[in-house]
Amino acid sequence: MSNFFKKKTIAIVSLLFLSTVPAVAETTVSAEVSFIFNTFLFLVCGFLVMFMAAGFAMLESGMVTSKSVSVICAKNIGLFAIAGIMFWLFGYNLAYGIPEGGFIGKFLPWSDASSLETGYAAGSDWYFQMVFCATTVSIVSGTMAERVKLWPFFLFAAALSGIIYPIVMGWQWGGGWLAVSGFSDFAGSTLVHSTGGAGALAGAIVLGARTGRFDKSGKPTPIKPFAASSIPLVTIGVFILWLGWFGFNGGSQLSMGTFDDAVAISKIFINTNLAACGGVLAAAIVTRLMIGKTDVLQMLNGAIGGLVAITAEPLMPTPLVAILIGSVGGIIVVFGTKLLFLFKIDDVVGAIPAHLFAGIWGTMVVPLTNPDASFSAQLLGVIAINVFVFVVSFTIWSIIKNTIGIRLSKDAEKTGTDVFETGVIAYAIRD
Amino acid sequence: MSNFFKKKTIAIVSLLFLSTVPAVAETTVSAEVSFIFNTFLFLVCGFLVMFMAAGFAMLESGMVTSKSVSVICAKNIGLFAIAGIMFWLFGYNLAYGIPEGGFIGKFLPWSDASSLETGYAAGSDWYFQMVFCATTVSIVSGTMAERVKLWPFFLFAAALSGIIYPIVMGWQWGGGWLAVSGFSDFAGSTLVHSTGGAGALAGAIVLGARTGRFDKSGKPTPIKPFAASSIPLVTIGVFILWLGWFGFNGGSQLSMGTFDDAVAISKIFINTNLAACGGVLAAAIVTRLMIGKTDVLQMLNGAIGGLVAITAEPLMPTPLVAILIGSVGGIIVVFGTKLLFLFKIDDVVGAIPAHLFAGIWGTMVVPLTNPDASFSAQLLGVIAINVFVFVVSFTIWSIIKNTIGIRLSKDAEKTGTDVFETGVIAYAIRD
Amino acid sequence: MSNFFKKKTIAIVSLLFLSTVPAVAETTVSAEVSFIFNTFLFLVCGFLVMFMAAGFAMLESGMVTSKSVSVICAKNIGLFAIAGIMFWLFGYNLAYGIPEGGFIGKFLPWSDASSLETGYAAGSDWYFQMVFCATTVSIVSGTMAERVKLWPFFLFAAALSGIIYPIVMGWQWGGGWLAVSGFSDFAGSTLVHSTGGAGALAGAIVLGARTGRFDKSGKPTPIKPFAASSIPLVTIGVFILWLGWFGFNGGSQLSMGTFDDAVAISKIFINTNLAACGGVLAAAIVTRLMIGKTDVLQMLNGAIGGLVAITAEPLMPTPLVAILIGSVGGIIVVFGTKLLFLFKIDDVVGAIPAHLFAGIWGTMVVPLTNPDASFSAQLLGVIAINVFVFVVSFTIWSIIKNTIGIRLSKDAEKTGTDVFETGVIAYAIRD
Repeated sequence: MSNFFKKKTIAIVSLLFLSTVPAVAETTVSAEVSFIFNTFLFLVCGFLVMFMAAGFAMLESGMVTSKSVSVICAKNIGLFAIAGIMFWLFGYNLAYGIPEGGFIGKFLPWSDASSLETGYAAGSDWYFQMVFCATTVSIVSGTMAERVKLWPFFLFAAALSGIIYPIVMGWQWGGGWLAVSGFSDFAGSTLVHSTGGAGALAGAIVLGARTGRFDKSGKPTPIKPFAASSIPLVTIGVFILWLGWFGFNGGSQLSMGTFDDAVAISKIFINTNLAACGGVLAAAIVTRLMIGKTDVLQMLNGAIGGLVAITAEPLMPTPLVAILIGSVGGIIVVFGTKLLFLFKIDDVVGAIPAHLFAGIWGTMVVPLTNPDASFSAQLLGVIAINVFVFVVSFTIWSIIKNTIGIRLSKDAEKTGTDVFETGVIAYAIRD
Repeated sequence: MSNFFKKKTIAIVSLLFLSTVPAVAETTVSAEVSFIFNTFLFLVCGFLVMFMAAGFAMLESGMVTSKSVSVICAKNIGLFAIAGIMFWLFGYNLAYGIPEGGFIGKFLPWSDASSLETGYAAGSDWYFQMVFCATTVSIVSGTMAERVKLWPFFLFAAALSGIIYPIVMGWQWGGGWLAVSGFSDFAGSTLVHSTGGAGALAGAIVLGARTGRFDKSGKPTPIKPFAASSIPLVTIGVFILWLGWFGFNGGSQLSMGTFDDAVAISKIFINTNLAACGGVLAAAIVTRLMIGKTDVLQMLNGAIGGLVAITAEPLMPTPLVAILIGSVGGIIVVFGTKLLFLFKIDDVVGAIPAHLFAGIWGTMVVPLTNPDASFSAQLLGVIAINVFVFVVSFTIWSIIKNTIGIRLSKDAEKTGTDVFETGVIAYAIRD
Repeated sequence: MSNFFKKKTIAIVSLLFLSTVPAVAETTVSAEVSFIFNTFLFLVCGFLVMFMAAGFAMLESGMVTSKSVSVICAKNIGLFAIAGIMFWLFGYNLAYGIPEGGFIGKFLPWSDASSLETGYAAGSDWYFQMVFCATTVSIVSGTMAERVKLWPFFLFAAALSGIIYPIVMGWQWGGGWLAVSGFSDFAGSTLVHSTGGAGALAGAIVLGARTGRFDKSGKPTPIKPFAASSIPLVTIGVFILWLGWFGFNGGSQLSMGTFDDAVAISKIFINTNLAACGGVLAAAIVTRLMIGKTDVLQMLNGAIGGLVAITAEPLMPTPLVAILIGSVGGIIVVFGTKLLFLFKIDDVVGAIPAHLFAGIWGTMVVPLTNPDASFSAQLLGVIAINVFVFVVSFTIWSIIKNTIGIRLSKDAEKTGTDVFETGVIAYAIRD
């Protein structure tokens, strides 16, 4: 049952796409060879996605101010550990144990059940899905930097990875009610990226902005006291994410045991890359024209915006369309950042524009290239998932706030979270 | 002959494990396709392990004080170069040229001898084993930071990669006396990690602590003058090591040409990941309870402790047991650090607790999940390898100390090793 | 037609090489399985090469002074985006649309045309070739750091990736006039690395040295005001490049669907690694003997020199010969740096010695190990490509200089390019 609907959608998509290239009538690959190829695909693409955890850690470390970097590192290594355990304990079967067209699966730990008929080792599928789950949580950690308490964040990470994400995952990729409704989200513009972004948005609102971030008129104060600690770390973070995205989107083809699959995965690699290219250049051009400088942080976040945007449908677009989808994703990041300022929402690393806003764009644009998708079904999915995730996250953040508390003292915020929470400063550099 | 005993052990293990999943009666994969899969496994897992060299370099760069970082970088790039050449010149045939049940192989350079019957390209096996050898040496470099001379370290690196490691490798994976005794070490908790740790321990004792590290009562001085130079670099280092470990343990299955192998490798990926998760969270909880702060460095080293612990047997444990094995590994790192303080042994990066202590734990716990392993054989292997490596390393370090010297002048130590040894400061940052 | 000549050369090479190992008479791998293996090789090796973009970004970020790091990051993410789009828009068909023995292909965007007969998914080939194109451009960005304007650099990046590189690529790997002449360059010592280096040299000459870099007598001023901002970032950069090079050279075998290919790729991995080892150690020894310190930056660049040198022929050399080829590459880097000083050419990161000089060395030495190559054909190729690239690049840089300008104001140079171009400082670290 697992992957059933995702697979079906993909089979149809592949067929349509491949009608433009000479197709192999019938596969000549034996079931066991195909099993090994599919398993290897999950493991290789899985380790690429796993490495995205390092990408988020570096992107966020580089973007926050230098007094709150150690906590970011603690958050990122901690959430990856939490997500791994929660997705084994509950997550996988909450998602894939769902009845067809249903709402929620079973609270059962994952256990191995590989057979040649499944087409891939069950463990490799768990691994691949687990790193998606961890990615969702990684998205949240940067937004709330510099003022959130560490352990309440870990608590939310457990809820997101063990319950919230698995539920929406089951709705679609487990063959739940949303899949039945015709929603289409190839690799997770909405399921992963909007989910992470909506959780971050809820958290940012409940938590409030950093002290002194906005002046009385509501404008962000000059960047000086909130300067990014290290642009090269942001840069390596983005390159790692870009690298990982080939696994993220390519592996979502879910099989590599036929000519058709190999052609499709290659196509996905190309579109994924071109969308990121578009995002980078669009952000570069827009900021150069708007502020007279080429905002390197927006270029880097523009790559993420482009990648998020293409994730809902990386197979069907032509290269040119992929560039355009990604470019709009990059532009959305630039203006989305300004939009958050208007509402005095303090997203330290720009995760909400890059993941939530660009994720909505990418999902809504699927019907343009995929004739199986409809605008109404896409809208339904976007609203259902984002509202569900936002409301549940808002509730959880609020409960935590009103019980153990989520915000560090003003004193801790001023001194830097690192000394208070982890006891070590992040950069002890003397020359 | 090479890999003979490792393979046999694995075949039995696989059989046992796979009794719990529907097995394929006979493989339908042709010899040549299997040959390509196996070779590809070695190359892909090999490059993941190769990248661990970068992980160690970053972990160590981030953990030492900012005046001794360039030398760490020189050490890490240098030792990887030395290990590669020594393992070609002597190492491989010292290990795999060993007679069955013997003690040492032949002093001969590696040469290619691929045939379809071997099951994989001989060169891919060399590559995979070489990166294991380099990993062993990487473990040593951090412990002795901030006071050891560069070239004497390189001399020891040559001895460790060319002679010491290959000898113990031959004992077990070459089918030597230890393999015959029934010792079990799937991917090297003892062979690689304890070996590196024991070499580091010997070096740390011969070399002595950094000037001023311990006060007269024997307590470590407050961390201030010995602060880690960059927590984000430690973090990316650990994520890279975590990534590489999938290759380290997964590739140690040694073949991927059958249904059974594909299932086994997937299982190994899962257990490897869960053990690391356990190590991170255990260290986080323990330090939070003990010192009131969440020690991010112990969380990061806890991941290593968990990974080292699962390495001796990543296939047989259930997920829950893997989490427990890793958690204990993480706790061992925390308390092992304190244990070294008691003896005034100055391990700058905590490599001895993470690799030696957690390696012993992981090796000793194998019989709990692998019915083919016995407590007595594990004890024999742990003692034999650690005593052998420690004594030989201690002797070599002592000879070097009494001839060309191993310790920098107090003046150099105070100024920082970078200016004296490499002539460049590591961080030239002005803002 | 694409890859025709590269493939032919390789087939012959493989045959010769494999005469020393028991060969499989006829392949037993079905066309579809072979198709999947080949496609997977391109994708895996392709993502390794893609990641080299991060390696260059870190190497360069670490080597430039701390006031000009953000611009380096902007350049590297920007050029990767530009190269991706240009190689789709023009590049691929300029190279592979070339008539046999011809000079230039067609100005046409790439489009998919996969068939089982091609042997691999067309998209995977595009992806693999695209990342080679991007690598070529990455080489240029560091040399001109700290004084070049950002957008004129992007303009040159578009010309190099869209036109200059594809033309020389077509000459050889597209089956153009150079391939017909018997030139041999397995993975691009000349096509990629010298091309990048010659473009950088042209740019450095047109642009001129940094203000104050050389004193009146022509000697470089003491390093102080031009200190490398972060040695660990250079180190991770080099390790990433080393990792990526396995994909670069290994993937250039172009197929993995037979016993022979698997053996050849393994051999390539070994030689690639050993050449880098040789480069590191040669640079370490030479600088230690010459200046009494072990120059870590030269060790790191020595790795690159060794890797570039082996790239023209990573398959035929024995391991010992690979070490020697790489060692000379490392020595060339050390003395090449001094040579540039003589001519007052200011190459901030040492890209010209590592890529242009070591690339020439590697290409010229091919006939020593590959009996199909001749000294005269190699000389022809080296001269033709380097002169062509240098002259065209010099012309383009000169035109840009005399129209929109390429050099920042002295004021901007003094303050640092970051504030002027990107508006953010690279390291905002307060402790």
